[in-house]
This record gives sequence, structure tokens and C-alpha cells, in this order.
Amino acid sequence: MTISTTEKQQRSGTLTVVGTGPGAEDLMTPRARQAIEQAQVVAGYKTYLDLIRHCITPEQQVLSSAMMQEIDRCRRALELADSGKTVVLVCGGDPGIYAMAGLVYELVRDTDSSSKIEIIPGIAALNACAAVLGAPLMHDFAAISLSDLMTPWELIEKRLQAAASADFVTVIYNPKSKKRTQQIIRAQEIMLEHRDPQTPVGIVSGASREHESVCLTTLEKMLDKDIGMQTTVIIGNSATFIFGDKMVTPRGYSAKYGLAGEKKRAT
Amino acid sequence: MTISTTEKQQRSGTLTVVGTGPGAEDLMTPRARQAIEQAQVVAGYKTYLDLIRHCITPEQQVLSSAMMQEIDRCRRALELADSGKTVVLVCGGDPGIYAMAGLVYELVRDTDSSSKIEIIPGIAALNACAAVLGAPLMHDFAAISLSDLMTPWELIEKRLQAAASADFVTVIYNPKSKKRTQQIIRAQEIMLEHRDPQTPVGIVSGASREHESVCLTTLEKMLDKDIGMQTTVIIGNSATFIFGDKMVTPRGYSAKYGLAGEKKRAT
Repeated sequence: MTISTTEKQQRSGTLTVVGTGPGAEDLMTPRARQAIEQAQVVAGYKTYLDLIRHCITPEQQVLSSAMMQEIDRCRRALELADSGKTVVLVCGGDPGIYAMAGLVYELVRDTDSSSKIEIIPGIAALNACAAVLGAPLMHDFAAISLSDLMTPWELIEKRLQAAASADFVTVIYNPKSKKRTQQIIRAQEIMLEHRDPQTPVGIVSGASREHESVCLTTLEKMLDKDIGMQTTVIIGNSATFIFGDKMVTPRGYSAKYGLAGEKKRAT
Repeated sequence: MTISTTEKQQRSGTLTVVGTGPGAEDLMTPRARQAIEQAQVVAGYKTYLDLIRHCITPEQQVLSSAMMQEIDRCRRALELADSGKTVVLVCGGDPGIYAMAGLVYELVRDTDSSSKIEIIPGIAALNACAAVLGAPLMHDFAAISLSDLMTPWELIEKRLQAAASADFVTVIYNPKSKKRTQQIIRAQEIMLEHRDPQTPVGIVSGASREHESVCLTTLEKMLDKDIGMQTTVIIGNSATFIFGDKMVTPRGYSAKYGLAGEKKRAT
């Protein structure tokens, strides 16, 4: 049976891809919460659904899975939307940064779905990690994932080289997994070719959650620290400094204008 | 009169640097709202304070100014915190991305302030713009400000070259002002040396606000569009595509796994 485009559109629902932020309940936006509360179907990876369990009512259909691949999860969410349901697909962080928003659009294109798609942004790992570290992202930065599952390693290495040589603050996503252990070592080597071994490095996992772990170290010593799948690593630029227990990349105010104030300047 | 460090700490208050997100009320986090509501003093640039006017009560002291420089604003906020007040410094977007968090830490360092500093992250322009454009930031990206007020233009150009040559999706902040009109032209030239003229480009201003403006164009034609101080420009990588009215950078699922599904593959 062939279904016409018009028929499809008439019966299609909506798929809203929702970012729930880094984990703390009060860092999820009201727009995200409302979308979850109003949905007929809530789909997502089990870990993220557990963080928003209090928003879900018994009347809602929940598609939770620990093991299901993200493609299957997105596909099932889109199929339910295509059948007329109001579906939210829940992502941790921001669905627009290394998350599900792109996969949903790829699926919509490849399956001729007529569902209405909406993306609700969230506070991404890079925003949350920067906040707990101090102010490392005050100047130009690059975000690079070290996962070579879908990206050739040569391209990732080229990007590391580019970021290192042009003095970008560098945010590393997916630095390491059980099977992938060499990429972060190579990333450190490349950075050390261009940056001082004492360059500040921030290592964060579980930002804003109960098990939040924050570590300030240096480029030279970063591999001595605990780095895993859920870790975000932020490598400072040549001007980044450690101040107390914070990591700060100056924007340039102090150098240009002087900030010490009358009292200090007079002494 | 000299004040000892202990005395200073005893009478010091807190300065919380709060990100209010892109502008829509329901994209500000509950943590940000609560910090604003509980503060004795609310400081910020007038435009951002106007967006959160409904959170402020008559009992609160408000430091709003259209013309005051950001250094003076931060300094005054920090002085009030040093005198024992609970102060919030309000930023649009995320205070941690090209905003006030870094300046506050620079000031704290240079003035020996003993106030407690906290950063509350917000949804930054890059998160909000990506959401309205579709999914442009699904892969490695670089954020570059074209403002050469505090950064030498040679360094900015070097970063543009690096981002262009390593195929980073590139988010351009501060692309143009009344006085600064040549930088975006040079940025386009550099990108065109490495990328197809048809590369998708998204131009967004006022994301999530009433006057939100979203424009999808190409690298070749981007300069024909309206670009100003408040605009964010996102230049796709070599794989970014336009799909309907959205801009999508694939993560690589379709290429690696195929997404068309049984039905489509069978035809």
C-alpha cells in the first residue's frame, strides 16, 4: 500500500528532541520540562531518563533502554511521531552538540518522514564543565571528539594539530573508552608540540551531578588523572592560568586596560 | 587603614555570575532565576536586565546601565560583594563563553577580592542558534570571535585559517560592527580557500526572542545577508547539508550504517 505525502502529513505527529542539561534538575530549562510533561511518548537512553523520572507520569509511554543503539531509539521515536504521537526524545546536555539532533534529521531525510521536528537546546557538557572549572572558554575554542568510530583518525589528528597550532582552547569530548585508550595519548603529544607542559588542563565528569568530579592539572600530567567515557577535558590556551582552584582564560582586559584599580596601582 | 585578609573574608559576600540564556523566559534555568530572585543586588547590561525584569522585586538594588563599560560594571558588582552583599551579575547567554565570567576572575585576582564567586551556566548563543538552524554542530567545531579590540588580528586570521583547513564547523561571534566591517569579508575569503562556495551558512540574530531572525545561505552568498553586532554566523563543514529549511552536519551514521530502513532499501 502506498501512502501519499498529504496523508502522511495529516496523520504525522511531532518529535521534539530535548536537551535536559548536565544532570542537575535546576539546570534543565522550563521549556524542556514542559515538552517532556506534555508528550505522549518519552524516549531516551536509560541514564538520561532516570535523571528526569520525576517529570514522567504513569499515563506516558516510556521507551527506555540501556542497550538499544541510538539509531534504533531515534528510529522508533520517529516512527511513533509518524503515527501521530507527540514524542520527545530526551538527550543529556544539548541535543545539538555531538548528540541526537543531527541523527534525527538524517533519519527524517532518509525515511521521508513528515513529522514536525523541534530541537530544544540544553546546557551542554562544555558549558557546564566550563562553569565548574572557572572560566576556561573566554576566548576562541575548538571542540573535538576523539571517537574514531565514525570519523577517520587522520581527520581527528588533523583537527588536533590545527587547534594546537592556532592556540585554541580545546575541549575534548569522548577522550577515552575501554577499547579506545591511545587517542588521548596522541592528543597530548600533539598539544605538547605547540604548548607549554604547564598549560592548565581541566578534567570534569558528571558536572552538576552528585558524583561530579573536577580535577585541575597540567598538560604534562593530564594522563596521570582519571579519564573515561563520560569525561570532558579542557586544555587551556597559552594565556590560560590557574587562580586558586579555578582555570581562567583571560579575554584580554587586564593586558589592555589594567584592572588593579586606583588603590593597587597607587601602591 | 589596612584590612587583614581574615577581616576581608569575614565581611565579604558572594558574586554569582548568571547566564540568562538567549532571551526567551523559558530557556533560562531555574538555578539562574533563583539566584536572581535571592540576590540583594542585581547588576547587568540594560538589555539583559530588561529581559528578566519580571524576576526583580522593588526591594532589590539594581545596577543597570546602557553605557557603562563592562569593566566598571563588574568592578562595582565585585565591590558590593566585597562589602558583604549577595550580588548577581547578569549576562545574556552563557557567562562562560565570551562573556563576564573571565573578567570577574581577572578582577578578583587583580584586586585581591575575598568574595565567593560562582558561575551559573546558561544556554549560549551557539547552543540556541544551532537549535533554530537544525543541527549544524553535530561534529567538531571551532568558535572564533572576529573582534580585534583585545586580540591581534593576525591571531584571529591564523585561527580562521586553522579552522578552515581542518574542516571544523565554524561559529563566528562578533562578526561585524559599525566600525568593524572588513573582518567578515576576510573570514569569508579564508573559508573559500578551503571550502566549496556552496557550503551551507546559517546566520542568526536574536535567537528565541521576538525579533529572532534566521537565514540559511551559502558561503559564497553570506555577505549579501544582514550581519551585525548581535549576529552569530555558523559556517558548515564539507559534509554539512541543507534539508528543507534546516542546516545539518551529519555525525556519520548514514554513511556508516545506512539509515533508509528496510522498506526504502528494498525499493
